[in-house]
Amino acid sequence: MNPDQAYAELIRLSRTESILSSCAQLLQWDAEINMPRRGVEHRGQQMGLLAGLAHERATDPLREELLTVVEQSPLVADPESAESVNVRELRHDYDRATKLPRDLVEEMARVSAMSSQAWAEARDKNDFAAFEPWLDKTFDLARQKADAFGYDDVRYDALLEDFEPGMTAAQLTPMFEKLRVELVPLVDALRDKPAPQVKGEFPIERQRELSEGIARTLGFTADTGRFDLGPHPFCSFIGPGDVRIALRYRADDFSSGFLAVMHETGHAFYELGLDDEHYGTPMGSAVSLGIHESQSRLWENYVGRSPGFWRHFYPGLQREFSDALSTVTIDTFRKSMNRVEPGLIRVEADEVTYNLHIIIRYELERALLDGNLTARDLPDAWRQLYQQYLGITPPDDKTGCMQDIHWSEGLIAYFPTYTLGNIYSAQIFAAADSDVGPLEESFAKGEFAPLREWLREKIYRHGRRYKAPQLVERATGGAADSKHLVASLTQRYM
Amino acid sequence: MNPDQAYAELIRLSRTESILSSCAQLLQWDAEINMPRRGVEHRGQQMGLLAGLAHERATDPLREELLTVVEQSPLVADPESAESVNVRELRHDYDRATKLPRDLVEEMARVSAMSSQAWAEARDKNDFAAFEPWLDKTFDLARQKADAFGYDDVRYDALLEDFEPGMTAAQLTPMFEKLRVELVPLVDALRDKPAPQVKGEFPIERQRELSEGIARTLGFTADTGRFDLGPHPFCSFIGPGDVRIALRYRADDFSSGFLAVMHETGHAFYELGLDDEHYGTPMGSAVSLGIHESQSRLWENYVGRSPGFWRHFYPGLQREFSDALSTVTIDTFRKSMNRVEPGLIRVEADEVTYNLHIIIRYELERALLDGNLTARDLPDAWRQLYQQYLGITPPDDKTGCMQDIHWSEGLIAYFPTYTLGNIYSAQIFAAADSDVGPLEESFAKGEFAPLREWLREKIYRHGRRYKAPQLVERATGGAADSKHLVASLTQRYM
Repeated sequence: MNPDQAYAELIRLSRTESILSSCAQLLQWDAEINMPRRGVEHRGQQMGLLAGLAHERATDPLREELLTVVEQSPLVADPESAESVNVRELRHDYDRATKLPRDLVEEMARVSAMSSQAWAEARDKNDFAAFEPWLDKTFDLARQKADAFGYDDVRYDALLEDFEPGMTAAQLTPMFEKLRVELVPLVDALRDKPAPQVKGEFPIERQRELSEGIARTLGFTADTGRFDLGPHPFCSFIGPGDVRIALRYRADDFSSGFLAVMHETGHAFYELGLDDEHYGTPMGSAVSLGIHESQSRLWENYVGRSPGFWRHFYPGLQREFSDALSTVTIDTFRKSMNRVEPGLIRVEADEVTYNLHIIIRYELERALLDGNLTARDLPDAWRQLYQQYLGITPPDDKTGCMQDIHWSEGLIAYFPTYTLGNIYSAQIFAAADSDVGPLEESFAKGEFAPLREWLREKIYRHGRRYKAPQLVERATGGAADSKHLVASLTQRYM
Repeated sequence: MNPDQAYAELIRLSRTESILSSCAQLLQWDAEINMPRRGVEHRGQQMGLLAGLAHERATDPLREELLTVVEQSPLVADPESAESVNVRELRHDYDRATKLPRDLVEEMARVSAMSSQAWAEARDKNDFAAFEPWLDKTFDLARQKADAFGYDDVRYDALLEDFEPGMTAAQLTPMFEKLRVELVPLVDALRDKPAPQVKGEFPIERQRELSEGIARTLGFTADTGRFDLGPHPFCSFIGPGDVRIALRYRADDFSSGFLAVMHETGHAFYELGLDDEHYGTPMGSAVSLGIHESQSRLWENYVGRSPGFWRHFYPGLQREFSDALSTVTIDTFRKSMNRVEPGLIRVEADEVTYNLHIIIRYELERALLDGNLTARDLPDAWRQLYQQYLGITPPDDKTGCMQDIHWSEGLIAYFPTYTLGNIYSAQIFAAADSDVGPLEESFAKGEFAPLREWLREKIYRHGRRYKAPQLVERATGGAADSKHLVASLTQRYM
């Protein structure tokens, strides 16, 4: 087989795997949005079958042969060509996929299913002791997984590679440390700063219409996406031309639903901005969870909370919810959306304190993975860090170390991508603003195309051409640095 | 491999094929109900991939080996055991699936896609000449397909086997002939019999609530199914515990939406009544399209149009739509639902004339397949038969021989299953009524479990254990005969 044929076959295999995964994606979306309750068992069988078929293709030994042919050919002479990127990344994925022994993969799936069920029950009963053995087991398997992958420096890196390829603990730790040192006093300073609260009734149907209308104005059109009500907000990428957003609204609070719309629309823009021509290959895939989150956070925090944005949209909002807003100024409205208050629950945290929730989890999961902390000692360690960084102590484990599902599902080294997203988003927005801004002025005129075009050019269209830190550096002209986030938070909140 | 292992492997292959097809089923449902417009191309790729994977499993040569081992073993000693039925039917399916040359399968898929597009355009422009070559090509391919399958008597049988296994033209022709001879004078006699028309406004949201509420009362529960608005009414079987009904309502007419709910609920009950334990094998599959249609027609025509049913539901309906119905008696309401009027369009036809539409198509598609009629002569032949059987002549081909999509998609020998469904439904309902009736009295009390239980016992749970004619004979005590349909129509309409 000549290199051209081998490359074409490699791309075909990759696309097939992606299409199979996209079928599973639709099934998953449907399970959350539409499926009747008793369809769950069959859905599990469908998902299991599709996952198995996708995995077969990901680990097909034919890939090794094809890769070897192409890697030694002139097709990969230019390291930034689509061919080179695809071959490099497919090699990366294949090597990782084939490094895990089948026994371990099955054991992890089995434990994850049982452990997340044990977690849900234990959390409801506030019974950490019932969850504790599952947590030890999960971290034990995570160590085995990391060892199977291999690593240069610390075990954690081997796991982080699944979510944020190219990132290491050696880069993360000082970045997070620097951020924490600046955030703790900022949170302290904001603790006693009063923020107005806007009270009133925001009928959900009207919130939906309004929020969806705003997303349409930003460029999320009905021919390539849809909105649904779901059990929690999420964005689901089914395939080119089909990205779906699920949302949840609260009748007593406008901002939670609205900010979720902005957040998920940011995720959607990234997926819709990938190059359709490269669908199903690394060149047409999102680069990392951190970059994905940077896109959602950018639209949520740097567009959706901005004064310019509300100069454009607030008059309409005020008309729509005149009962609640007729006497509320735009300034009061925005301030009420930007309340900062240390709380126990990560998913309810404001923009400033959120990162401290993540840093706590990062420190704890690193200790659990290294064996410096056992599950038994987690609740105490959790309480200590919450007291130390946020000045509050959870009264129980339900609102403490059992609040998140991630660890129970075996997702170790996932949390940092949230804060990486926040760090990247500040830096990326600042660069976009400097290149094509002042963006506030575009927003005030209801124009969002300049920002989207800049993002498409600098971020979306590159797929996995560069690793995340490289991509950020190329887009912004500087290495990833939390200083942009701190500067923005300080400027906006102090 | 011993017979037990071979049988287990055979079942595993069959289930896998079914689960893959069920994923495609969900994708198809989603394409009609939810998919954003621009998702269509990717959806085609997903469907194509899944169809290919299911086909690979259906034609896996391993099946031949496994079947051979089991067929010679004591596992199939009792011909009515689940094992025997599964082996017999899997052999049937495998032999058929492997008889078609790959070239022919691909050519049929290609022509079907283009032909149905040509049909849609030609119909819109009322330009039969543009569709004519596609129709010839389609029947030419159907002849090749029939010859590849092989047949004992006439080519038509080889195609009919796809939709109504075990049925032959030799059985159909006299059954349809006898029916036609009785229906033509019945339609004539009803032609000038006036039926009242109920006019008024039936707000769609309230129709939905009411119709869905009725289906719930019949036993279609939210934990195993859902309703959606769709471009046309259909029932989609996703898997055990997940059956979905799509509906369309008209604000100026209650009965069209309501009868569709009853019809699709009948289909749903059949799927939900199959034995979950046998999911993905012949023992857990519907036996034929004719039997499927008999279940939808039974609930539509023998339950939903019955006086007992409306004794129970009419008072509520009258309250709900008091503007339109307060002065309409139950008798007038029922009569308005049961109008008989020869018309040009099959899908709008009433219960009595409907079968003449089908018989016309049966006669014409047999002549087209035999080569006794060419596409060029179809419009004339169509007009002649409509005049002869229904006493009306279509003014153009758009409302004449181009009204249905079926032939353009290569569905030849599909139409008869509609009238078989009507014939079976009358016979099956009469038997149920005689066994556990009078069912009218149950309906009047809002009790539908006796009918459903009888159907489960006599029809649903057998899957493909018996061929359709045998199943009908065992359930009703007599061979399939159109006399029950004629008797019921005469009794109800004259």
